[in-house]
Amino acid sequence: MSVVVQNIERPEAAIVEGLAECGVATVHEAMGRKGLMRSHMRPIYAGARLAGPAVTVSIAPGDNWMIHVAVEQCREGDILVVAPTSPCEDGYFGELLARSLMHRGVRGLIIEAGVRDVRDLAEIGFPVWSKAVFAQGTVKETIGSVNVPVVCAEAAVQPGDVIVADDDGVCVVPRAEAKATLDASHAREAKEAETRKRLMAGELGLDIYGMREKLAAKGLRYV
Amino acid sequence: MSVVVQNIERPEAAIVEGLAECGVATVHEAMGRKGLMRSHMRPIYAGARLAGPAVTVSIAPGDNWMIHVAVEQCREGDILVVAPTSPCEDGYFGELLARSLMHRGVRGLIIEAGVRDVRDLAEIGFPVWSKAVFAQGTVKETIGSVNVPVVCAEAAVQPGDVIVADDDGVCVVPRAEAKATLDASHAREAKEAETRKRLMAGELGLDIYGMREKLAAKGLRYV
Amino acid sequence: MSVVVQNIERPEAAIVEGLAECGVATVHEAMGRKGLMRSHMRPIYAGARLAGPAVTVSIAPGDNWMIHVAVEQCREGDILVVAPTSPCEDGYFGELLARSLMHRGVRGLIIEAGVRDVRDLAEIGFPVWSKAVFAQGTVKETIGSVNVPVVCAEAAVQPGDVIVADDDGVCVVPRAEAKATLDASHAREAKEAETRKRLMAGELGLDIYGMREKLAAKGLRYV
Amino acid sequence: MSVVVQNIERPEAAIVEGLAECGVATVHEAMGRKGLMRSHMRPIYAGARLAGPAVTVSIAPGDNWMIHVAVEQCREGDILVVAPTSPCEDGYFGELLARSLMHRGVRGLIIEAGVRDVRDLAEIGFPVWSKAVFAQGTVKETIGSVNVPVVCAEAAVQPGDVIVADDDGVCVVPRAEAKATLDASHAREAKEAETRKRLMAGELGLDIYGMREKLAAKGLRYV
Amino acid sequence: MSVVVQNIERPEAAIVEGLAECGVATVHEAMGRKGLMRSHMRPIYAGARLAGPAVTVSIAPGDNWMIHVAVEQCREGDILVVAPTSPCEDGYFGELLARSLMHRGVRGLIIEAGVRDVRDLAEIGFPVWSKAVFAQGTVKETIGSVNVPVVCAEAAVQPGDVIVADDDGVCVVPRAEAKATLDASHAREAKEAETRKRLMAGELGLDIYGMREKLAAKGLRYV
Amino acid sequence: MSVVVQNIERPEAAIVEGLAECGVATVHEAMGRKGLMRSHMRPIYAGARLAGPAVTVSIAPGDNWMIHVAVEQCREGDILVVAPTSPCEDGYFGELLARSLMHRGVRGLIIEAGVRDVRDLAEIGFPVWSKAVFAQGTVKETIGSVNVPVVCAEAAVQPGDVIVADDDGVCVVPRAEAKATLDASHAREAKEAETRKRLMAGELGLDIYGMREKLAAKGLRYV
Repeated sequence: MSVVVQNIERPEAAIVEGLAECGVATVHEAMGRKGLMRSHMRPIYAGARLAGPAVTVSIAPGDNWMIHVAVEQCREGDILVVAPTSPCEDGYFGELLARSLMHRGVRGLIIEAGVRDVRDLAEIGFPVWSKAVFAQGTVKETIGSVNVPVVCAEAAVQPGDVIVADDDGVCVVPRAEAKATLDASHAREAKEAETRKRLMAGELGLDIYGMREKLAAKGLRYV
Repeated sequence: MSVVVQNIERPEAAIVEGLAECGVATVHEAMGRKGLMRSHMRPIYAGARLAGPAVTVSIAPGDNWMIHVAVEQCREGDILVVAPTSPCEDGYFGELLARSLMHRGVRGLIIEAGVRDVRDLAEIGFPVWSKAVFAQGTVKETIGSVNVPVVCAEAAVQPGDVIVADDDGVCVVPRAEAKATLDASHAREAKEAETRKRLMAGELGLDIYGMREKLAAKGLRYV
Repeated sequence: MSVVVQNIERPEAAIVEGLAECGVATVHEAMGRKGLMRSHMRPIYAGARLAGPAVTVSIAPGDNWMIHVAVEQCREGDILVVAPTSPCEDGYFGELLARSLMHRGVRGLIIEAGVRDVRDLAEIGFPVWSKAVFAQGTVKETIGSVNVPVVCAEAAVQPGDVIVADDDGVCVVPRAEAKATLDASHAREAKEAETRKRLMAGELGLDIYGMREKLAAKGLRYV
Repeated sequence: MSVVVQNIERPEAAIVEGLAECGVATVHEAMGRKGLMRSHMRPIYAGARLAGPAVTVSIAPGDNWMIHVAVEQCREGDILVVAPTSPCEDGYFGELLARSLMHRGVRGLIIEAGVRDVRDLAEIGFPVWSKAVFAQGTVKETIGSVNVPVVCAEAAVQPGDVIVADDDGVCVVPRAEAKATLDASHAREAKEAETRKRLMAGELGLDIYGMREKLAAKGLRYV
Repeated sequence: MSVVVQNIERPEAAIVEGLAECGVATVHEAMGRKGLMRSHMRPIYAGARLAGPAVTVSIAPGDNWMIHVAVEQCREGDILVVAPTSPCEDGYFGELLARSLMHRGVRGLIIEAGVRDVRDLAEIGFPVWSKAVFAQGTVKETIGSVNVPVVCAEAAVQPGDVIVADDDGVCVVPRAEAKATLDASHAREAKEAETRKRLMAGELGLDIYGMREKLAAKGLRYV
Repeated sequence: MSVVVQNIERPEAAIVEGLAECGVATVHEAMGRKGLMRSHMRPIYAGARLAGPAVTVSIAPGDNWMIHVAVEQCREGDILVVAPTSPCEDGYFGELLARSLMHRGVRGLIIEAGVRDVRDLAEIGFPVWSKAVFAQGTVKETIGSVNVPVVCAEAAVQPGDVIVADDDGVCVVPRAEAKATLDASHAREAKEAETRKRLMAGELGLDIYGMREKLAAKGLRYV
C-alpha cells in the first residue's frame, strides 16, 4: 500500500506568491476561517513567511526513510509536509536533509513531529514549522507514501495544495480554491487598510462596524 | 447578565510605575508569593516589562465581540485582561485591535487564549502575553462583560488591579495592596542588592543565609 | 536518607570540550541514540552550546534549599542538574543563584522545573534548560540530596556524567562512555561532512545511501 | 500571612440538598453558565452526586500539613476544597485522612492535585474529585491558610460557597446566589421535563425551540 | 458557506454489522493501519461496541446549534460525528439530545469536545466517545455545516463513512473500502484464532512467526 | 548494541508477595518516598493489585518486535516492563500477547505507551498499566534490548527490581532494598492501623501527631 505519486498538479506560481504575501491570518479568514493547522505547529525561528505547493509524506513513527524518498519528488518552490501515522516527536529532520532540499529549491518543511540541528537550520535559512525540537534519532526500516492525502496537525492536505506559513502558524489552501482565496485575501487587505486608518485616527470598532445597536439588542447593559 | 462597568477605580500612577520597574518575580515575592498567572502565559516577544491597571473582559469561546466593547473603556496606561469562559486558544486579537488600543494609550494585552499577527505586533511594539499563537478567526455573536471580576490563567483579577508583566510571566496585585507591595518590593530589592554583592564576591548562600546549622538539624549528612 | 556526596569523579576536560563542540544531535547518535532528555527541556535563550560534568540535585517540589547546598559542591566547568522528586514547575532558580554559580565557574543549569529572572539570566549569559519559565517562589524547608543518581526529564543521570546541551536539547553521556562517544562523534562528523558535500552538489540521499534497492524490496511502488 | 478562619457562614441546608439533587450541569446553566471547575477535575469513582459548603485550604506544593489543620474546621455536611499555590499532582490525601473527615460528617473532597488509596476510598465511600491519582507522598513543613478565598481549577471559591459535584465535574455556587440558583435550577428542570417528553415522542429540537427561521436568516442552506 | 447536505450514501447494513463485531483494533489493522482517531477520544462508559454510517457536523467552538440541525438528518443506525472548527472541550451534548437521537435510532456520538449528563447517558445506554467530560454550556448563535467532510481527532471523515467504536477508541472506514475491510478483518480474525490456539498451548511468537533468524540477521545478541 | 540478557537475579518470592499486599502508597512511603512512576501510568481496569520481578524491554517507537523476544525470557510471577526509546502511545500490546504471557505465568504489563484489546484483557484478567489506550498498530522492523536498565515513566528500573502496581499507580523497589522495604512497609502498616483506630474514634491528626505547637511556632494564626 506504499506508493510514491510522481506527478502532482501544482498551483500557478503567481497565485502562490500572492498568498505568501498575504500571510496566514488573512488567508485563513479569506477562505472562510478554515484550513489552519493546530497551534502546536511552531516555527523554529521567527520571521519566515512563505508559501508553496505541498509535497506530502505519510511516514512511520520514528522512521525518516520516506523523507529521503520525498526529496526526489520535490521541485523549485515546493514545501514538504510530513505527517507521522501516529503521534511522534522524534527528530526526523536536520541540517543534512535541509541541504538536500535547498539544492532542489524547496522553501521549507512542515512536520507534525520533531526536528533537530535548529541552530544550523536558522543559520542556513531553512524554515521549519514543527511540533517539537527534539534530537531523538530515527531509523530507516519502514516504508510509507509520498504525495498521498494526509492529515497534518488536524488539517487535511492534498498534494499540490498551497501551504502558507508564517509566525502565526500554518494554513492549507486547497489547490482548486487558491485563486479565489487570493482574490478574497486582497479584498480583505483593502478593507483592513481602510479600517486601520480609521482606528489609528481614534475611531472605535464599535462605530466603524456599527455594533452598538446589535449589542443593545442582545441585552448588553452599561452601568 | 452581561454588563459593562464604566467607572472603575485605578491605582495611583506612581505606584504602577514602581511595580513595573520591580518586575514580576520581585512583586510576586513581595506579596507573599501569590498572584501569579500560570506558566503557560507567555510573551509573544522577549524584553517587554510593564504594569498597569486591569480592564477585564469575560468573553465567550471563539467570539471576540466584547474586546471591541472593552476598547472604549480603556484609558491611557491600562492593560486589557481577557478571560474566556471556557478554555479556548482561538486568535481573538491581532494588529488592528492593537492599533485601536495603542491610540487610547493601552500598554498591553493579557489573554488566556490565542493571538495572531504576532510579527506585526512585535514591529509596532504592542506586547501580549497569551496561551497560544493561533490564527483561528473568531465571530461576533455572543456578548459578555467588561470590568467584572474574572479568573485568568488561575489568577483572580478585579478591574483596577495592577497587572505586572515581563519575560517571567504575569502577576496580579490587588489594588488595595499595591502600595504595600511596592514598599515590600523595594525592601526586597535592597536586600537582594546586598546579597548579590556578597555572592559575586564568592560568599555562599549557605553562609549568608546561615543555613548550615538548620540543615544539620534536619539530618543532612555530608559523605 | 539525605546526603551530600562531596567527591565525585569527573571526566577529562578535553573530552568534555570535544563533546560540547559536537553538539547534542551528533553525540546522541554517536552513543547509539540514547541519553536524551525529553523535548520539554528548552533553553531560556537561543545559541548556547556547552558541556560539563553533572553535579546532581534531588530536590523537593517547591523547595530550592538544596540548590544552595549544591553550589558549594560545584567546580569550574560543572553543570548543575536539578530533578524534583515529583513534577513541579515552580521557579527554583533566578539571577542571584546564577551569580553564585558563575563565581564558581559553573557553565549552566539543567532543571526539570521552572526558572525565573530569565531576562537577567540572558543578559549575564548564564544558560538554563528548563521545563518552564515561572516566577513562582519556593521555600527552604525540606532537605534532599546532592550528587546522587537522579532521573531528569526521563534521562538517568549519575554525578560526573557529561551533560551536553544546545538549542536541540540536553543529552547525558555516562562518564565511562565519554571517550568512546567523542571518538564516535568525530567519526560521524567526518562522514557527515562528506555527505554534506555530495548533497550540496545535488546528489540524492537515495543514491548516496544506496536505498533504492531496499525500498523496492520492501514493496515501494512509484506511480 | 497564614491564617485559619474559624467561623464561616454556611448556606441553608435545604438549599444545599436541593442543589445536590439538581446536579452540576443544571446548576451551572441555572447560574448563567459560570462557576465550573476545569474538566481535568475528575471523580475517583463514578456515581457520587453531592453538595455542601466549602471549607477552603490554600496549601503549599507537596505539603499536606494544612489538610490536618482544616479537618478541625469542618462540620457535618461540609466539602473540603484544596488548592495548591502552584501546580502539583502529589498525593496529598488518602484513606486515613478520609476516615478523619468522615467522622466529622464531611461529604467529600475537591483537590486540584493528586490523591491516593483510591481503592480504599471507593470501598469506604468517600468521594473525591481530583486532578490526578498519584501515590507521591507529601511533607509537613510549610503552613498555608484555611477558609480564605482560593482559585481551584480556575474557579474562584469563597469559604461557605456551595460546591456541587457529580460525574460531570464540579461547580461552585456563591453563597449569596444559592437560593436564586436553586429556584432557577428547578425552573430549568421543569422546562426540560416538558422538552424531554416531546423529544421522546419524536418532535425535533428544530421545531420545539423554533430554530428553523433563525437558521434560515443566518444563511443556512439545505442541499 | 454553511450547508446541510441531506442525501448521503450509506454503506450496506450487513457490512456495518460485520465491522462492529470485528472491533476497532482488527478493523484498523485490516485497513492497513490507518483511520484511527487520536487516543484522547475515550468512551464515557466501558463495554460499548458499535458501528454505523457517519453523519458529520462541522461546528463552532462553544456553540451546539448545528447538532440540533443534524438530528433531523440522522436515520436508524447512524452515528453522529461532531468536529469543532477549533479546539474546544465545552459540553455540547447531554441527555436531552441523546433522547432525541435515540428516537431516530442513532447508535452513538463521536465528538472531539466535551459532553455532560454522563451518568444519565450511561443509564439510558447512549454511548459517547469524547475528548472530555465537561458541563460547560454552549450557545446557539453561529451556524456550521452538516454532512460535509471533517477532520475529527486527526482522522478525515466523509459523510457515510463507517465509524467503528469500542473500548479501544474510534476508527473510520471509508465507505468505498468497507466491504474489502470487512473481508480483510475476517481473514485476520481467522488467522488470529489459529495463533491464539498455539500461543495458549505454549508456543512462542518467536517460533510461530519465524522471527529468530531475522532477529539474528539484525544483530540481536543473547548474553 | 541490542542484547537479550537471559539470566537475571530475581527477588525472593515471599518478599514479592508481601510487597503486593502492602500496595503502592505504603511501599513508596516505606522506601523513603521514591520509586514511583508518573501519574499518567493508569490501570486499564480497576481493582488489580500485584507485584513481581521486572523483565525490562527497551523498544523502538511504534515497533513491538522486542516484546515477542521478551516473552521467552519471562518466568512465572514476572512483570513485563516496556519503555520506548522516545515518547510513543501506539498500541504495542493486545490480547494475543497477553495469552502468551499468561501461559508463562506473567502477572501483568507496565508499558509507557499504548495498549489495545482492553475489553478482552479485562475479560481474561490480564492487568496492564499504560500511558494510553490506543489501537494503533506497530511494526516488527527494529530491534532493541531485553533485561537492560530502562527509565519508564521517569522511574529507573533494573531487571529483577520489584514492580508493585495497583489502582494508585506503579512503584519500583530496587531488588537490594526489597527486604528492608517490606519490613518498613509492615512497620508503617502497624502504625497506620493504630492511627486509623484513633481517627475513627474522633481524635484529630493535629493531636495524634502533636502538630499544634509546631504550627504555632511557624506562625499560624487562628482568627
